[in-house]
Amino acid sequence: MNANAEFLTKSANIIEPAHDESLKSRKIYVKGTRSDLLVPMRKITLTDSHTDRGTESNGNFFTYDTSGPYTDPTKNPEIKKGLNNPRGIWIEERGDTEELHSVTSKFSQEQRAKNIPNEIRFPKKTKPRRAIGGNNVTQMHYARKGIITPEMEFIAIRENVLRQYYLENLSNEDRKKIGKIHNGQSFGAAIPNEITPEFVRKEVAEGRAIIPANINHPESEPMIIGRNFLVKINANIGNSAITSSIQEEVDKMTWAIKWGADTVMDLSTGKHIHETREWIIRNSPVPIGTVPIYQALEKVDGKAEELNWDLFRDTLIEQAEQGVDYFTIHAGVKLEYVPLTADRLTGIVSRGGSILAKWCLAHHKENFLYTHFEDICEIMKAYDVSFSLGDGLRPGSNADANDAAQLSELRTLGELTTVAWKQDVQVMIEGPGHVPMHMIKENMDIQLNECHGAPFYTLGPLVTDIAPGYDHITSAMGAAMIGWYGTAMLCYVTPKEHLGLPNKDDVKEGIITYKIAAHAADLAKGHPTAQLRDNALSKARFDFRWEDQFDLGVDPERAREFHDATLPQEGAKVAHFCSMCGPHFCSMKITQDVREYAKKKGVSDKIALQKGMSDKAKEFTSKGSTIYIKDSNQ
Amino acid sequence: MNANAEFLTKSANIIEPAHDESLKSRKIYVKGTRSDLLVPMRKITLTDSHTDRGTESNGNFFTYDTSGPYTDPTKNPEIKKGLNNPRGIWIEERGDTEELHSVTSKFSQEQRAKNIPNEIRFPKKTKPRRAIGGNNVTQMHYARKGIITPEMEFIAIRENVLRQYYLENLSNEDRKKIGKIHNGQSFGAAIPNEITPEFVRKEVAEGRAIIPANINHPESEPMIIGRNFLVKINANIGNSAITSSIQEEVDKMTWAIKWGADTVMDLSTGKHIHETREWIIRNSPVPIGTVPIYQALEKVDGKAEELNWDLFRDTLIEQAEQGVDYFTIHAGVKLEYVPLTADRLTGIVSRGGSILAKWCLAHHKENFLYTHFEDICEIMKAYDVSFSLGDGLRPGSNADANDAAQLSELRTLGELTTVAWKQDVQVMIEGPGHVPMHMIKENMDIQLNECHGAPFYTLGPLVTDIAPGYDHITSAMGAAMIGWYGTAMLCYVTPKEHLGLPNKDDVKEGIITYKIAAHAADLAKGHPTAQLRDNALSKARFDFRWEDQFDLGVDPERAREFHDATLPQEGAKVAHFCSMCGPHFCSMKITQDVREYAKKKGVSDKIALQKGMSDKAKEFTSKGSTIYIKDSNQ
Repeated sequence: MNANAEFLTKSANIIEPAHDESLKSRKIYVKGTRSDLLVPMRKITLTDSHTDRGTESNGNFFTYDTSGPYTDPTKNPEIKKGLNNPRGIWIEERGDTEELHSVTSKFSQEQRAKNIPNEIRFPKKTKPRRAIGGNNVTQMHYARKGIITPEMEFIAIRENVLRQYYLENLSNEDRKKIGKIHNGQSFGAAIPNEITPEFVRKEVAEGRAIIPANINHPESEPMIIGRNFLVKINANIGNSAITSSIQEEVDKMTWAIKWGADTVMDLSTGKHIHETREWIIRNSPVPIGTVPIYQALEKVDGKAEELNWDLFRDTLIEQAEQGVDYFTIHAGVKLEYVPLTADRLTGIVSRGGSILAKWCLAHHKENFLYTHFEDICEIMKAYDVSFSLGDGLRPGSNADANDAAQLSELRTLGELTTVAWKQDVQVMIEGPGHVPMHMIKENMDIQLNECHGAPFYTLGPLVTDIAPGYDHITSAMGAAMIGWYGTAMLCYVTPKEHLGLPNKDDVKEGIITYKIAAHAADLAKGHPTAQLRDNALSKARFDFRWEDQFDLGVDPERAREFHDATLPQEGAKVAHFCSMCGPHFCSMKITQDVREYAKKKGVSDKIALQKGMSDKAKEFTSKGSTIYIKDSNQ
Repeated sequence: MNANAEFLTKSANIIEPAHDESLKSRKIYVKGTRSDLLVPMRKITLTDSHTDRGTESNGNFFTYDTSGPYTDPTKNPEIKKGLNNPRGIWIEERGDTEELHSVTSKFSQEQRAKNIPNEIRFPKKTKPRRAIGGNNVTQMHYARKGIITPEMEFIAIRENVLRQYYLENLSNEDRKKIGKIHNGQSFGAAIPNEITPEFVRKEVAEGRAIIPANINHPESEPMIIGRNFLVKINANIGNSAITSSIQEEVDKMTWAIKWGADTVMDLSTGKHIHETREWIIRNSPVPIGTVPIYQALEKVDGKAEELNWDLFRDTLIEQAEQGVDYFTIHAGVKLEYVPLTADRLTGIVSRGGSILAKWCLAHHKENFLYTHFEDICEIMKAYDVSFSLGDGLRPGSNADANDAAQLSELRTLGELTTVAWKQDVQVMIEGPGHVPMHMIKENMDIQLNECHGAPFYTLGPLVTDIAPGYDHITSAMGAAMIGWYGTAMLCYVTPKEHLGLPNKDDVKEGIITYKIAAHAADLAKGHPTAQLRDNALSKARFDFRWEDQFDLGVDPERAREFHDATLPQEGAKVAHFCSMCGPHFCSMKITQDVREYAKKKGVSDKIALQKGMSDKAKEFTSKGSTIYIKDSNQ
């Protein structure tokens, strides 16, 4: 099954949908060991460099692709039909689930019986699947039994993004330059040079990674969340009582994955929650997460004290049968922790946290999510829904960061992780919030310690509170750092945070900002695929290959638009200068002159100098530095 | 002279220009020990909170203000006249300088004799000042003689931003909450709880801070750059051969300081460099920096090999007599380091660096800025121009970060720092560039070590290369971190970096992003004034005091606009909910309910629980964490 090395170098495994040849950046698939295992990627055909050695190919660069069938020109997904089911056959083949005659949640049954307008009701009535008898159908369960599922193989291919294949097709000279990768500082993460299906299995088995893959979401393309993999990002969408429609929310989802969202959370709190979710899941190639307590609260007209286990249980089943891949469950908001928030500057700011705090105080009883946690696990394992254990007591301001309320809850989440793992239910842990830079590492370390290595999934953290309108930035600063320290998935924040609901532009801005944070974290951790892209782009920049620079960037459209704002002429995109300094005064051009000079004049002492200086550099870096020093002589 | 404590609590020292009473956020001045020492600040009159204890005042919050006379409604600066000279009398009083009959640089004399159109020539011909005889007129020189200049007192008042005054006028309850400040992690920085004029003097005397204050720029409002003060930011402006006019550049300068630029660098490379600079300096209340080699290169028609010391010397004098406050001097680009860049992925990307590298190779001689460094110091000390020792070999990509070329140059900058300090010339050191997160601390530590504590002034660093169009963000991530680690000033990067010239929107976006980075750094270092603003804003947010939240933010205009995009009605700005969750479902509202519940039900075990949990929290944080743990029981 460890067929990875083969995929990485064989072009025969690359399937290219029919496309316009002028399209330099386009969707492709990499075939796995079975013909229905097709891993999507984006292939960027780079233009040639013109050097003094002649014309040289820069090969093809491949990137991880989350955008689903929407960017495959040979497919035309219709949102009224929903997507195909790439995982359907894999789930069936396992033989441990059955198709039910209908939905089993009471609410879902009532909902189906209702007369709901066509534009609101998703046209296709799906029949949900469920584990047969007491079967456990989680990816963690399979992993622990030593089974490598097609999902795991898919992920292994996906995470390597044809890195070796790209490198091996470069010229020797370029391979030397592009392949020059810094050692990272991984803080205990152990990222192998090549991700194998077996490595994926092991990480899932040991709880360090999760594969959110509900058996009722066969449309999804498998992905993994764990600190020994690429850092992932989540985008939140969802309507509220004030604004936005179903169509808008589906559009936001496809828009979010176009720009790189790895998962999407539907946080709707307004009308038609159930129907909105159905549209989103049926059209989503990425895992969908929800916070079931939001819908439960709607069912009791917003009266938190009227919430109860039966109602909540029915909501979990309702959503599990729709195909939600992970649930935020605020089971760590224990009664005894609530008073710890009374003297905070900003109390409780998590919606879920505040609902449960209110319930606990109203009944003066322990949180029913905590007391029913094992019952919840039973549901999770019958559909393979993953836990995202919610941080209901996360700080709402820097002042409240890492306080007793937050850390007490975190410890309880660690305790609940152990309970879930006993039933092979997948778990990740949610984190803050607002934390100043110097307290982020502490938060990460406590999470790793208390939660036994379960993946951390953090909102930001925002490193300052003073920038309403720019909290995508304040939070991405913290996100990049906590990603480096070991967080597996970053929940995006948009510029509208604290002020209003994000529109499409805000969603894009939030996603791109978080793609940057995730990539910066991968780079710092020394993930083997990360720096390759930086190097490929930097070489394109230095070669004045403008189109390649745009295509290799996180947002080719904006890069092109910004360039054209000053130099709109088509010719400027092959010009060996840019608008910052003009044609006469360009440092990159001068450097090329320097190289030629150096060559012509035969700077004879070059090698000797280089060696001498490098030794000196090492000598003085070793004085002041305690962390990794790159070998500057490479 | 240590009159600070007095300023901090006496409202009598606050001078309020006539203003519209409805204006909640406005310019004020704080008077020092002399009547002409007026320190600008912004005063934000906060609205009342309505609590169960009744209506409570939130006092007035004060912020550091860089915007100059332009935001004083009683002044109407005309750019054709230039600003008033607040420092003029202080400079004269010292009696160590003289007004010259005319400019002494040959180029300036020729320029003045030329027939230049009125719209290009600045209308007023200034007579420059220069040190009499061999006098040394640098702030460092005074500091080392034990003299506290008015500039130093101005800075002391400015850096404290009436912190104590604000706190002392809060209710006891609020003072407890707002004044709850985390200890920072300062990496050896030693920021006192109160900045005194004597502390300013000492920091300058010992070279850890500089006050860029050319005697020919009396229009400037003194500010300080050093790691034991608030982190500062610089904005670059300047026309190039391709685009932009003088008027545009002056507009960019006033726009940049409106949003918080602490210094501005004029990097013009196009036409009319001399005249553009004159307009900018005469109208700038913030220090102006330049890179004199750019103009020198224009004078030899872009032929680097034709540069020579006489021409460069004349350029330094030309600019020093115009009032440039700091010069970037690439004296560390030594001949022997140039070959170290030949195998880099992206060679030399600094314009100054590449010019000098070309010169060195063309002549196969040592960099004339290095060989004439003591001569340069002679000029610097006669006008008090500060060095910004340029990093001509900074990395242009993450691949080239912290390599032998960069670190060799850095060591030479340390050596030159010692030379400058022998003549009491102020020095800061420029830094990268492109550096992945895990290599930033190493870079900062080497700088501190090799450059003897001289302030570090960094461009970014960009923590990844893959985001053209978003490099304000990739670089601000690195900037926040390196600011925390000890960098004194951050050079902004705009979204157009690598792609085109910034327009006004880009300049603003770059500045705000960098204000965030600088503030996040201050917060993490534990600067005593930083967290107060976060706390004041967070309390406003939690109280639903929308207008206060906007005014306390870095960009009140955008915050207001974003809020109004979803809830435009005026009433929504006093509403106890926002558009994210709607009126029914608001976590902050629920928290207030929780507090009331907790109070009503008399949660009797609250205190006991709090103590117990806090102990437990400490116990488990102490396991996983090596850094500071806040006392969560406060």
